[in-house]
Amino acid sequence: MSFGFGKEFRVTVFGESHGPCVGVVVEGCPSGLKIDLEDIQRELDRRKPAGELATPRREADRVRVLSGLFNGHTDGGPLSMIVENEDVDSSWYEKNRYLPRPGHADYPAYIKYCGMNDYRGGGFFSGRMTAALVMGGGVAKKLLASAHVEVTARLVQVGRMKLPREGEGQTTGAAPPSDPAAEKLVEREILEAARDGDSVGGIVECTVLNLPAGVGEPYFDSIESMIAHAVFSIPGVKAIEFGAGFGLASMRGSEANDEFLIRGGVVETRTNNSGGILGGLSTGMPVVFRVGIKPTPSIRKAQKSVDLRAMEEATIVINGRHDPCIAVRAVPVVEAVAAICIADLMIRDGKIVRRQGRR
Amino acid sequence: MSFGFGKEFRVTVFGESHGPCVGVVVEGCPSGLKIDLEDIQRELDRRKPAGELATPRREADRVRVLSGLFNGHTDGGPLSMIVENEDVDSSWYEKNRYLPRPGHADYPAYIKYCGMNDYRGGGFFSGRMTAALVMGGGVAKKLLASAHVEVTARLVQVGRMKLPREGEGQTTGAAPPSDPAAEKLVEREILEAARDGDSVGGIVECTVLNLPAGVGEPYFDSIESMIAHAVFSIPGVKAIEFGAGFGLASMRGSEANDEFLIRGGVVETRTNNSGGILGGLSTGMPVVFRVGIKPTPSIRKAQKSVDLRAMEEATIVINGRHDPCIAVRAVPVVEAVAAICIADLMIRDGKIVRRQGRR
Amino acid sequence: MSFGFGKEFRVTVFGESHGPCVGVVVEGCPSGLKIDLEDIQRELDRRKPAGELATPRREADRVRVLSGLFNGHTDGGPLSMIVENEDVDSSWYEKNRYLPRPGHADYPAYIKYCGMNDYRGGGFFSGRMTAALVMGGGVAKKLLASAHVEVTARLVQVGRMKLPREGEGQTTGAAPPSDPAAEKLVEREILEAARDGDSVGGIVECTVLNLPAGVGEPYFDSIESMIAHAVFSIPGVKAIEFGAGFGLASMRGSEANDEFLIRGGVVETRTNNSGGILGGLSTGMPVVFRVGIKPTPSIRKAQKSVDLRAMEEATIVINGRHDPCIAVRAVPVVEAVAAICIADLMIRDGKIVRRQGRR
Amino acid sequence: MSFGFGKEFRVTVFGESHGPCVGVVVEGCPSGLKIDLEDIQRELDRRKPAGELATPRREADRVRVLSGLFNGHTDGGPLSMIVENEDVDSSWYEKNRYLPRPGHADYPAYIKYCGMNDYRGGGFFSGRMTAALVMGGGVAKKLLASAHVEVTARLVQVGRMKLPREGEGQTTGAAPPSDPAAEKLVEREILEAARDGDSVGGIVECTVLNLPAGVGEPYFDSIESMIAHAVFSIPGVKAIEFGAGFGLASMRGSEANDEFLIRGGVVETRTNNSGGILGGLSTGMPVVFRVGIKPTPSIRKAQKSVDLRAMEEATIVINGRHDPCIAVRAVPVVEAVAAICIADLMIRDGKIVRRQGRR
Repeated sequence: MSFGFGKEFRVTVFGESHGPCVGVVVEGCPSGLKIDLEDIQRELDRRKPAGELATPRREADRVRVLSGLFNGHTDGGPLSMIVENEDVDSSWYEKNRYLPRPGHADYPAYIKYCGMNDYRGGGFFSGRMTAALVMGGGVAKKLLASAHVEVTARLVQVGRMKLPREGEGQTTGAAPPSDPAAEKLVEREILEAARDGDSVGGIVECTVLNLPAGVGEPYFDSIESMIAHAVFSIPGVKAIEFGAGFGLASMRGSEANDEFLIRGGVVETRTNNSGGILGGLSTGMPVVFRVGIKPTPSIRKAQKSVDLRAMEEATIVINGRHDPCIAVRAVPVVEAVAAICIADLMIRDGKIVRRQGRR
Repeated sequence: MSFGFGKEFRVTVFGESHGPCVGVVVEGCPSGLKIDLEDIQRELDRRKPAGELATPRREADRVRVLSGLFNGHTDGGPLSMIVENEDVDSSWYEKNRYLPRPGHADYPAYIKYCGMNDYRGGGFFSGRMTAALVMGGGVAKKLLASAHVEVTARLVQVGRMKLPREGEGQTTGAAPPSDPAAEKLVEREILEAARDGDSVGGIVECTVLNLPAGVGEPYFDSIESMIAHAVFSIPGVKAIEFGAGFGLASMRGSEANDEFLIRGGVVETRTNNSGGILGGLSTGMPVVFRVGIKPTPSIRKAQKSVDLRAMEEATIVINGRHDPCIAVRAVPVVEAVAAICIADLMIRDGKIVRRQGRR
Repeated sequence: MSFGFGKEFRVTVFGESHGPCVGVVVEGCPSGLKIDLEDIQRELDRRKPAGELATPRREADRVRVLSGLFNGHTDGGPLSMIVENEDVDSSWYEKNRYLPRPGHADYPAYIKYCGMNDYRGGGFFSGRMTAALVMGGGVAKKLLASAHVEVTARLVQVGRMKLPREGEGQTTGAAPPSDPAAEKLVEREILEAARDGDSVGGIVECTVLNLPAGVGEPYFDSIESMIAHAVFSIPGVKAIEFGAGFGLASMRGSEANDEFLIRGGVVETRTNNSGGILGGLSTGMPVVFRVGIKPTPSIRKAQKSVDLRAMEEATIVINGRHDPCIAVRAVPVVEAVAAICIADLMIRDGKIVRRQGRR
Repeated sequence: MSFGFGKEFRVTVFGESHGPCVGVVVEGCPSGLKIDLEDIQRELDRRKPAGELATPRREADRVRVLSGLFNGHTDGGPLSMIVENEDVDSSWYEKNRYLPRPGHADYPAYIKYCGMNDYRGGGFFSGRMTAALVMGGGVAKKLLASAHVEVTARLVQVGRMKLPREGEGQTTGAAPPSDPAAEKLVEREILEAARDGDSVGGIVECTVLNLPAGVGEPYFDSIESMIAHAVFSIPGVKAIEFGAGFGLASMRGSEANDEFLIRGGVVETRTNNSGGILGGLSTGMPVVFRVGIKPTPSIRKAQKSVDLRAMEEATIVINGRHDPCIAVRAVPVVEAVAAICIADLMIRDGKIVRRQGRR
């Protein structure tokens, strides 16, 4: 373990793909925060598979609160929520339990848990667990909104299709105007892979707006450390970069450094190659990072595997249900974990202490 | 805070660039581990500035043990070590304390600590603090060596100069044969920048060999989460990717998935695009990741800043001492933090329990 | 917060007295542990109010597993369980919400949460939350049993009635033979208080048998620190002592020190005034501690309180449902938290690594 | 491990009795706190052995700062301090290393660390480590003083000699007027034991004044949990009770409950049997607790032990240097750990956010 993250604002996830439910316990949310469950539901709905581009497994994913809300407000205690698993079919997994799927956790999990873990649909390694992160992140986003901090993510790459990123034609952190032509191309990229019995990866960019300067900590609780830690808990994530990221390697210092200026009485930087973070602390500029997500490992094409009981090589053909591009559904999940990190750091920094009540 | 990292094997760093010393407390190292101080010293020496390519600040950086070693072995208690600061010159910083250096933590630190932090040489934000990480990592490396696990890092890019990476012509994790021609080009890239009063960034690749399958944890203590968390605490790091990393975004699943095979009776994968990690757990293949490091922010070229007292724009010319490429010296630091993470995860997984004694 | 406890074996509790349920997430239980739900249920049943001596609130308290069990064994993921709240009546609390009950958390909770906490039945401060501890402790007890470690608690004082303690006539840790005469006197002590519209406190003694020597940690993770930490999270606990406890204050060293001897080839101590713990580590002798529990704060007698809205003194008469002696029901709760602590320390010490599977 | 304690205000201790020094790293102290080293020194001096009643080992115990102070104020980084060991004599320990001293950690430490721990003077189990706690607590006390919170401890029992406690003739938390006659009797009690080659235990009472209502957390971070956790890390502590403590067991609820009233416009309680804590949260009344400390285990009288190499029973005669009553010197240590806990809880509760600077 650990299935929990955060010091003062903490989420703990539980559940399995084919068990009764997936859930989250949120500790440390200040009391008195108004939570409209429809807001949490909207986040879950953004994550839900939909249309031709998604898994045929269909879950209602209705959020159910088990504790922590009282008269529509957080009550200061642990806030726990679940979504139930309804559309479960374990037959494929029962037949193939000794054949680890390439790109999945099956093989190392079999070793680590000595074959005792729930192998159906990936068990607790399933992408379905991200519903728990989204519920926890939904609470964090409400809390951040009360401090005017906004977290938004979007796709900037799907397979070979690249979409505009932060800093390309705009530096405000606002989402670029939707471009139907580009969306069409993205859709085609995914469908093409799907028709080949294959899948594609992608890159998600996330922006945190209105974070005041000086939030975060040096060293092990730097904004980068915290966000990277949380982001790598999302299944399929294999890379992260802040600001100009890997591009900084080939820059000169004079090009990479963000020079300071005063705008409207406030210290800002002309560029934002640092992604709004220096020394682990926020600079007051938008926090910007990109997350690289691998192609869905479940594909219809035949792959080489190994029969772990017989210890002999074998071929695996996956008939389980899956999305051809998990990056699409990762967008609200990246937002969620970023919101959780920022909420935790702001609370720890004394920047959020809302408890105001009905007294 | 936090200046500490790790659950069962934990390092806590302390010190400032211009204070008495830089130090580390290592908790959780099992008793009975033989520590030859010369091994720790060798790690420190690898990190030390040297030659034309480095800062003129010259520190002996001799490790001094304050606790935790008894008759040349760890005694089970906190192992603390320091290196003293000797070659300190704070004059430039005293004169420029209200002028934040672009690319440094000066500005957000001024806000966060209300101007009370030690601004001399960056205070506790200084790259000099990495000496503490290297000492802690030196202990971790000894511990891992006792379990036959090896952590090695090397430069794979400096400025625009690219060097061979893992998987390019070799997949063993062993360092490629040194290439004097390439080294010459790297040196030239750095010197050129230095002569221009400028600096360059770089990329460090790190490999963990012989890690058994099944180490690590799903979700928040995944190997990726832990390593990324620790790596982003190194000043100047802005990006990390595991295995094929961002490259996975444009791959198809059939190309990205590492197929399983049996080699010498052991399950392996044909490729290693996952960087030796699936579902946060080690697969038994080499763990491989790359770290993007920005150019040294301190450059001689004039830059725009802001006088924080007068709140007016100003020009800053840095005469402090600095390296033209911190990526060069980051190599042993990346190794150190990776070793700390892996040691912690192995201990927590019951894979390292050495205490054998003189009984 | 925190509603979670433990480093490698961790429980996180959630719920409110009058909300939908009370639950627990157990992280870090090794995979492959057989859990018979009836064993967990038996622990819950021991905690349930029963008979004339208990609250008239009657809950079925049937354990329901939400995650972490697969084919009757732990699967290595978070194990979550709930019991539902069914027999809820909030009317008294609605009428008296601005009148803090003496001896309850009402007043400081009102201040801390600005009146936004769930005041019905004490909300998340309710003794009902101990059902979550008992479920988590039930898992810990199963895990300890697999290592032959046994945790048992019993009443040694109820009001003015004292029962035999460890070391009084026996030193084996085994429960003394039940004494119907003594039980009669205890019952009478409680009934007498109840008839007066009053309540009584008590002392619970807990013993951990078969814990090998050398478990625990010096300083902040000493067995005493961990157990005391967890025990004080039980509502109503106000005191704890290990071994001879407060009695050691008036002893001489020559009397207090437990001399060593060899018995059956094993080092033991003649006496056990240290309660099986020296320097925070287990000595191999039974771990023994006693927990002081205050009288149930809810009593029928009229008490002085303050109307927090009007800010004027007032009289409160509590008609809520309650036990006249919470110490009786605290017995399995003390066992539960002790088991959680010992399981965590043993796992961290590499003494429990069971994962054995069906491979 | 762990040698560290606290979430946002955290102390990590290191050192051995016969090593180079004993030290502490304090993380999370807000920047801008004025620290006069003489204040820290005064705390150390209170802990120092003195006079006929103390160990003949004489250490100067001059605090030396390694990091974290800048111009006499905390700078927001880790504050580290050491005291050096000067008067070290390891000869007795070398000769008796296989003979565990009754009442000391020697035996379980030998098992846990397989004989690799530093056995000289108890190594890191030594009471000398409390100097680290006192230095860390000194910082906490300064921080609390800035919020007008005061922590004071005093002896209320030495051997069979009882001194007045909180609530006996006064309820203000202020120390009772010193009573030369009582002090004389205490001194005689200790000297008598010393002359017999023996030692005595004692009880220390600690009071926290001016803590506002609502500080602390329910369950695992209750004030009681945190203080008990920290207090049991002090060598020799075997018991703790809050308010009326174990005495509550024999009280009726109507007697134990602290009724509310209004005094000077503020809600208070008539009595303080709860020790200023309800539901883990402060009530605004003084926090009061008592700590039971065992007699110094090192005595001159011959005791039975076991030769761990030969595995045969043996007699041990301790000639090491020691105090006849560690409770006397524990007074400032109890204060220190209580201050550390309260500082941590107040910072986490947003009650202390001092950073004010020279901007």
